[in-house]
Amino acid sequence: MIVVMRSGVDRDEVRAVVARLEALGFAAHLSEGKERTVIGAIGDRSVLEAASLEAMPGVERLVPIRQPFKLASREFQKESTVVNVGGVPVGGDRLVVIAGPCAVESREQVMATAAAVKAAGAHMLRGGAFKPRSSPYTFQGMEEEGLRILADARQRYGMPIVTEVMSPDAVELVAEYADCLQIGTRNMQNFQLLREAGRSRRPVLLKRGMAATIQEWLMAAEYVLSEGNRQVILCERGIRTFETATRFTLDLNAVPVAKELSHLPVIVDPSHGTGRAALVTPLARAAIAAGADGVILEVHPNPAEALSDGPQSVTPAEFERMMQDLRRVGEAVGRGLQSPAPAPVRVRVEAD
Amino acid sequence: MIVVMRSGVDRDEVRAVVARLEALGFAAHLSEGKERTVIGAIGDRSVLEAASLEAMPGVERLVPIRQPFKLASREFQKESTVVNVGGVPVGGDRLVVIAGPCAVESREQVMATAAAVKAAGAHMLRGGAFKPRSSPYTFQGMEEEGLRILADARQRYGMPIVTEVMSPDAVELVAEYADCLQIGTRNMQNFQLLREAGRSRRPVLLKRGMAATIQEWLMAAEYVLSEGNRQVILCERGIRTFETATRFTLDLNAVPVAKELSHLPVIVDPSHGTGRAALVTPLARAAIAAGADGVILEVHPNPAEALSDGPQSVTPAEFERMMQDLRRVGEAVGRGLQSPAPAPVRVRVEAD
Amino acid sequence: MIVVMRSGVDRDEVRAVVARLEALGFAAHLSEGKERTVIGAIGDRSVLEAASLEAMPGVERLVPIRQPFKLASREFQKESTVVNVGGVPVGGDRLVVIAGPCAVESREQVMATAAAVKAAGAHMLRGGAFKPRSSPYTFQGMEEEGLRILADARQRYGMPIVTEVMSPDAVELVAEYADCLQIGTRNMQNFQLLREAGRSRRPVLLKRGMAATIQEWLMAAEYVLSEGNRQVILCERGIRTFETATRFTLDLNAVPVAKELSHLPVIVDPSHGTGRAALVTPLARAAIAAGADGVILEVHPNPAEALSDGPQSVTPAEFERMMQDLRRVGEAVGRGLQSPAPAPVRVRVEAD
Amino acid sequence: MIVVMRSGVDRDEVRAVVARLEALGFAAHLSEGKERTVIGAIGDRSVLEAASLEAMPGVERLVPIRQPFKLASREFQKESTVVNVGGVPVGGDRLVVIAGPCAVESREQVMATAAAVKAAGAHMLRGGAFKPRSSPYTFQGMEEEGLRILADARQRYGMPIVTEVMSPDAVELVAEYADCLQIGTRNMQNFQLLREAGRSRRPVLLKRGMAATIQEWLMAAEYVLSEGNRQVILCERGIRTFETATRFTLDLNAVPVAKELSHLPVIVDPSHGTGRAALVTPLARAAIAAGADGVILEVHPNPAEALSDGPQSVTPAEFERMMQDLRRVGEAVGRGLQSPAPAPVRVRVEAD
Repeated sequence: MIVVMRSGVDRDEVRAVVARLEALGFAAHLSEGKERTVIGAIGDRSVLEAASLEAMPGVERLVPIRQPFKLASREFQKESTVVNVGGVPVGGDRLVVIAGPCAVESREQVMATAAAVKAAGAHMLRGGAFKPRSSPYTFQGMEEEGLRILADARQRYGMPIVTEVMSPDAVELVAEYADCLQIGTRNMQNFQLLREAGRSRRPVLLKRGMAATIQEWLMAAEYVLSEGNRQVILCERGIRTFETATRFTLDLNAVPVAKELSHLPVIVDPSHGTGRAALVTPLARAAIAAGADGVILEVHPNPAEALSDGPQSVTPAEFERMMQDLRRVGEAVGRGLQSPAPAPVRVRVEAD
Repeated sequence: MIVVMRSGVDRDEVRAVVARLEALGFAAHLSEGKERTVIGAIGDRSVLEAASLEAMPGVERLVPIRQPFKLASREFQKESTVVNVGGVPVGGDRLVVIAGPCAVESREQVMATAAAVKAAGAHMLRGGAFKPRSSPYTFQGMEEEGLRILADARQRYGMPIVTEVMSPDAVELVAEYADCLQIGTRNMQNFQLLREAGRSRRPVLLKRGMAATIQEWLMAAEYVLSEGNRQVILCERGIRTFETATRFTLDLNAVPVAKELSHLPVIVDPSHGTGRAALVTPLARAAIAAGADGVILEVHPNPAEALSDGPQSVTPAEFERMMQDLRRVGEAVGRGLQSPAPAPVRVRVEAD
Repeated sequence: MIVVMRSGVDRDEVRAVVARLEALGFAAHLSEGKERTVIGAIGDRSVLEAASLEAMPGVERLVPIRQPFKLASREFQKESTVVNVGGVPVGGDRLVVIAGPCAVESREQVMATAAAVKAAGAHMLRGGAFKPRSSPYTFQGMEEEGLRILADARQRYGMPIVTEVMSPDAVELVAEYADCLQIGTRNMQNFQLLREAGRSRRPVLLKRGMAATIQEWLMAAEYVLSEGNRQVILCERGIRTFETATRFTLDLNAVPVAKELSHLPVIVDPSHGTGRAALVTPLARAAIAAGADGVILEVHPNPAEALSDGPQSVTPAEFERMMQDLRRVGEAVGRGLQSPAPAPVRVRVEAD
Repeated sequence: MIVVMRSGVDRDEVRAVVARLEALGFAAHLSEGKERTVIGAIGDRSVLEAASLEAMPGVERLVPIRQPFKLASREFQKESTVVNVGGVPVGGDRLVVIAGPCAVESREQVMATAAAVKAAGAHMLRGGAFKPRSSPYTFQGMEEEGLRILADARQRYGMPIVTEVMSPDAVELVAEYADCLQIGTRNMQNFQLLREAGRSRRPVLLKRGMAATIQEWLMAAEYVLSEGNRQVILCERGIRTFETATRFTLDLNAVPVAKELSHLPVIVDPSHGTGRAALVTPLARAAIAAGADGVILEVHPNPAEALSDGPQSVTPAEFERMMQDLRRVGEAVGRGLQSPAPAPVRVRVEAD
């Protein structure tokens, strides 16, 4: 941390800051320029942030030198993490495609979608049983019944399942059925939920908050990691900007930045990141070209009848064409798609 | 809802949309222009949104006509709601000032702050016992012990207390101690928490999400209202923008807009909305001048030693001067401050 | 400037950066921590920025210590600048109100508006003769004929006039008629225009770019100042954010921040900053309460027939009520309104 | 345009709006629902916008049905425009790569860069002779001398040149030397400049404003087109958001959206859109995968000594590797790179 003192600061104020730093266990290096005095403070950043040093007289601002996350950082772990989701590696040499409906609406809908995406080569099945909806009056999900349907689809089609968990007390239930716990954009800073997911043995797919900086996103991952769960997949899903032509602005800059700062795998959700089916294929291709480890997509057998997010869902036929595109783009950047998902790897884990 | 069809749409596509609308119970009014066809659909907006009509062939987009919230709207209730927080009215003729430390750090700190803000004329005491922190390594709050300290301060100084609740399963505990449940910016779309707060008998202070539109904020209020709790106070606390000179951008446009759209009281948090103590007084004055029903502020006896948010906390002496300013600005816009809080109104409600 | 080196940087890379700094005439102070090496570089910031030091091997990033503007800064000039616009002081003890139509549409419209705003106590008249319009197909302004009308209104009603100049080659013409040159939000970084305005003898009202940071805004002022024109008035007019309920988000945090960083006067435009007439009064009051030196407003005798910005124009009757509000709020924060504008001070300056 | 009336509007207000619409030459279709009345108005949108209808009593808001641009729209012209820049087609079957230094700094620098990018297969040379700089104290460009150097490089290496023009009165000069006029992000709404470029016979590369919506960007193109110049290339270069890890947020959603709305070619600038050399290659690949017609990149023989934008410039060696990547990704999405630029096509056009 570097402490920048105000111009014209007086000597006693500088001394007080140095004394405070030393009391906190920091080594303080003073640099007095003609115009400004700055103090380098080597030590634990979080201690300093807690210390409200910026409120001391004469202090203009603190400039952090290191990232505030540790376990999530490449400085901490050089080699990339490969997360194993029910037998499917995420973050390794080959790309992963996760597909399925936005919401679980019925057994028929899930089975039809699962059959279609499996046939087209998807590696995992997604689908929401608990749905965060901005209106209390819209469909809120099938809840446990939805989880059961997903688990049955896993067994029938041999694909691990990813599904959202929205509250700390539901983690155990969802973890019982799902291979991977999704934490949604609105919950990225639901810290109790992050901690609870960190105590689960299931991998966690952590969506970026729609107004979260990359640093805050990695701090959210740190919450999960610091509880002992090292299986975190980052997912860029679009940020909120002034542009209204699309629902969100997919931030593909975030892909190489997150991979540089962190060893965790990074996937992209072009369905939410654009909000329109016609944009999903080009942005999915772009995500792979930008270096993402995979994509997660909404596919619905009949988008016009979907109970949520129909406008951004692609049809099975579009998905099939997209898979061919993704395979070609992946190969162009040196990373093929994985082979189709293996046979069912796990049934409901009673004794877990 | 108005359904705008694509240019060059064909007759069958239009017929299909009309049929779908009628099947959903809507009256469909067709307007065929030379260049475009639009269909007016009168009925329940949420049904239509769920219906994914935008995914039907030929549909360009849906244009909503009415706001998606009901109970929160001025159309639903013309007269302004006055929320009663432990005997203090919020949203009535007179302004309310809520003050206290960001976090409860110790009994001494809370009592010192409570004494000071009470003496300066504050009406309620704020303070966090559960703290949402972006880093897992910083101080997370004193939890129930903190709630107990706040309750004791209420009793000693006769001010109702407002404190944050961060997860659904803590609502009952916090409601036992607090006069008003605060839902923080990061939890504005934590829908389970909103529902649970809606089932509580305590008033709810709902902070705007840092990336939430005013409409989404009112939808979040709708979650609380729709569970039967009509005591909701809206709180603007700064939104995330590209500007980095301040921590957030306080959106005072939101004050008259929210009061126009909704009957709920609106207060402003200039401490979080600016992030710097030197800006708190001017923006608190501005909030009152913009028509807010009150302000909520961070005051700390020694900001440089605060365990959180020191840089944005004002000292008791600054707070006293600010109260005089707020009184004068309030009178200039026709609304005096309330009288200081009455004697203690409620002790810990054992049998609640 | 502080140069932060990457973790694990090697000694030669550090040496190369130090050598480069010294070659550029900087004193370089090396601080080697256990985890990071940082180099303090005291000298001219703009030289360093030009030097692309961040592209040198081993450099992680540069952290600027001082603001990049000089003449505009409070460090350079402690006392606040009072700009004299045709006899009306801006930035002194008393507040200024500038009012008039968005666009000059006809002699009748301008005279009617001028008469009304003068009667209500406005100090200056605004009105656009050259209009920046996002569509090439909408009304683009009356140009020189409009300037002539404004000048006549000045003479008849005794108010200095503020009007926009949109291109460098029009500065001379506009300066011939106007008492103050307005540079619009879309031109805040039209550097040739800034330079040309800097060479004019007329004061400059510099609107903040809708996506400009406060720092960039002050840098734009620096362009004008560095050409020798010290008469710059800053004008906050709303920034672009994700919120769609208002046309822009008025950033009142910017008022005290700009006044802290700079000695230049700061006024606020609540008409553009909100985009809706009903919001103009509350936000104008808030601007004054936040410490602005005045406001600039759109008033139109018949908003529903305005050729531009009708929805955000207030009527003369609303303006009159607003003036009373502004007077009261100004007094509440210790600053009355100025007396009404004096008698005509200047006619068209032929020999200028 | 659809006019949405307020709830509880009275009959006379509706009649007045209908009368106004008819007076303006519109056909007005009234739809009266139980809760709301809406009026469909078929006619010229720009007339209605100018008419300030939103300021009429009873009007809640206007909902535009059609895009406000015409000549730029796909509705107006179905087939994609191919712009010819000195013999190089932009927007056709094959991709274009434009490369060169941010600023022209010296003859040696330009020639070295031109030789390198030509050898690697670039099709056009870029370089700024007039530089928009946020500080008045930094290098502002070599101006006409810089244009001469670029023209010489064109002749020696046989690549058309693209260079920025910053003010209307420089259009003629720049057009004399350049094959394509670049209009920068800060000038996207410099309407005089747009008009002047529209009167030039050179193609125009129009960068998106950093806070411009896609619609505003196409309206800016409309300014150029409406003056008779149909040779416009759109260039996405990053928008301003809350994220600070990158200089801007490259908006690749904008690529398919702009291509859907408009027939004009769309290229991407990943150098400015990210601000860091390490991110340029992945985002350039992503741009191509998203469907861009090409990219424009900053290449500098020695980024650490660049007079501007060093940190985002790639070296010639990196550029060479990137070209191979772009070729492969282009082929994966069905569009190869163009053959290297042909022999010099044009020398300084004396008689133009």
